[in-house]
Amino acid sequence: MRIGGIAAYAPRFRITNRRISARLRMERMRVNRENRFKGLEQLDKKQEKVYKTSDRWIQRFIGFKERRFAADDEATIDLAARAANLLLEKTGIPAGDIDGVVFGTVTPSYLNSPPDSSLLQDRLGVSSSNGDQSPREFHCIDCSLACSTWVASLRHAYLLISTGAAKNIVVIGADKMSSTINWRDRAFATVLGDAGTATLCSVVPPEEDWFDRNNFWNWSRGSDGQVIVTPKGGSSQPVSSMDDITEYRNKLTMDGALVKERMVPLVGGPGIDAALQKAGWNMDMLDIAILHEANLVMNEDIINRWRKNGFKGQILTADGMFGNTTSATIPLAMALHGDQLQVGRRFLWFAFGGGLSAASVLGEIKHPIITTAEV
Amino acid sequence: MRIGGIAAYAPRFRITNRRISARLRMERMRVNRENRFKGLEQLDKKQEKVYKTSDRWIQRFIGFKERRFAADDEATIDLAARAANLLLEKTGIPAGDIDGVVFGTVTPSYLNSPPDSSLLQDRLGVSSSNGDQSPREFHCIDCSLACSTWVASLRHAYLLISTGAAKNIVVIGADKMSSTINWRDRAFATVLGDAGTATLCSVVPPEEDWFDRNNFWNWSRGSDGQVIVTPKGGSSQPVSSMDDITEYRNKLTMDGALVKERMVPLVGGPGIDAALQKAGWNMDMLDIAILHEANLVMNEDIINRWRKNGFKGQILTADGMFGNTTSATIPLAMALHGDQLQVGRRFLWFAFGGGLSAASVLGEIKHPIITTAEV
Repeated sequence: MRIGGIAAYAPRFRITNRRISARLRMERMRVNRENRFKGLEQLDKKQEKVYKTSDRWIQRFIGFKERRFAADDEATIDLAARAANLLLEKTGIPAGDIDGVVFGTVTPSYLNSPPDSSLLQDRLGVSSSNGDQSPREFHCIDCSLACSTWVASLRHAYLLISTGAAKNIVVIGADKMSSTINWRDRAFATVLGDAGTATLCSVVPPEEDWFDRNNFWNWSRGSDGQVIVTPKGGSSQPVSSMDDITEYRNKLTMDGALVKERMVPLVGGPGIDAALQKAGWNMDMLDIAILHEANLVMNEDIINRWRKNGFKGQILTADGMFGNTTSATIPLAMALHGDQLQVGRRFLWFAFGGGLSAASVLGEIKHPIITTAEV
Repeated sequence: MRIGGIAAYAPRFRITNRRISARLRMERMRVNRENRFKGLEQLDKKQEKVYKTSDRWIQRFIGFKERRFAADDEATIDLAARAANLLLEKTGIPAGDIDGVVFGTVTPSYLNSPPDSSLLQDRLGVSSSNGDQSPREFHCIDCSLACSTWVASLRHAYLLISTGAAKNIVVIGADKMSSTINWRDRAFATVLGDAGTATLCSVVPPEEDWFDRNNFWNWSRGSDGQVIVTPKGGSSQPVSSMDDITEYRNKLTMDGALVKERMVPLVGGPGIDAALQKAGWNMDMLDIAILHEANLVMNEDIINRWRKNGFKGQILTADGMFGNTTSATIPLAMALHGDQLQVGRRFLWFAFGGGLSAASVLGEIKHPIITTAEV
């Protein structure tokens, strides 16, 4: 499998750190006003803390400068369709040559049905019948694995293509994370952003394959599932009251300290060791690495550990300008830095987070790649 | 790949057709009472129609006798964990031999995070580390494709196993569909039920493979996405008001007539023709067929078309006793009729529905299979 092109789209609406802090402050005032109205006590210092942040705090502890928010009427499918159509346009591949869509997202446009992958088939203009009116085969699947979604989705495409089941697959990494923000908790409010990406995966002869099946590595620790969780809205606890909504119980929560405690040592040490060992690679073979951009300061910790163990490569990021776009972070960093993706360079893409989960892939760029970002 | 075992679990709580009609009647009265309170008109005859049903009507037009509903504190992960632990117990495979979980569901336990596949790793007691404390590789992915979810998930397992990436994968098909019912519309209220299934997929030498990559066939028609849809609760329209909840806008809706109009001719004719042709099979080679059990009367239409075209096999169903359990229907029918799964029999599993989507697979049973149902 080769990657022929990567397209990214981010909504125009820029949200600065200053604006995030103002929004949290407004929420704090609202809570105090409501408490007064209900005859309850005002928030105490400790309770107020989760509403307090600033541009300086966010830049220092997270490393993000700004992020983009989609419009109210712009869903995950719209972010993805914009990126996917851009991909087709720039790579010149006709929609009729696409054999399927692997749609990676943690914020599906619809609960239950319809799947975003089916919707995208329509948005790409791929017909459901052949010329003779027989049903046209088309592979759709929606995949999700929290922050590791994109690498897990890419692997599904790799399995389809490397077994000859498909020639061209569009892998989506798209999330409208703004729809998941709990404005009464700075943990995710300070980091999340929206973006859509589309990656063209195409068949090549085995000797030109960028990947190998041993280049994919996966890890999970389900006992830490509650570290990053949306308490309500799933089948475990459906949204059932107005309080669920006003108190953001159907929005994401995170124990940030525990995420760091668990993931930094893993990804910084035995995780990357296991991934490299499985593939038979060494740290010094890596020319480029991209980490899931959850928190640039935490990633810096991980990279420092790598450097101590011989990593000499270059790190690509979205420069802290888009926040944590979950399923979009890794392809977004590539779309923004296409000039760094030269033939001959070896790369590592490492995603990790909710689940807890981790998914990584190693590869070598063997063909020129078309990148484009409408941001 | 072979299938070593299939386990199914359904909650104890039996819901008869009579009870469904009573629940819909109660809802109709509630709406009229609310309308009176608000000074609005009572429901007219046409509006009342969607609340009216009976045991006779459901048996005649849908073919279901009863279904099971999970308890409030029983989520999709609980249905799946029960089935998966039963699977391990009956097949005798140690948890430590499982390389991964492909979790097929349209009702994930949590929105966004954590993924059910990670949670199941923990519920199975699979460790996240090896004996030497290095991180243990484990493959997790949550897959979704509306009513075609289970076949799409099975395919992911097939790709992992047939490429040597994994030896033993547990494929889950589990749904708590009762959490998606709109009690102001009989369309889905009369059909949906809850169940969890777990299927053990294991590596075998190529000559013993039950499947072939050409045995999988997929189709999609995203332009019909709105035929089966949950209007609110996804990233396109988050739940935002109490009315969204009381008026069930975050629950499933279906244009049943259009589903039939689109799917019966497709699955009954060119769909199965395309699936057979791709695999190089003929209709008369099929010993057993299982259709996604959305509606037994509609399925009868499809099967009649098949019989006219030479199908002479046996149909397995869940006998209308469990309703439409979405991702669980096909493995549930097998778990209930394990005595029919003799070595040498060739089968077709055909799923279709929301998206619109269809996914089918052909295979031959080449090893004894252990089935168990706790229902």
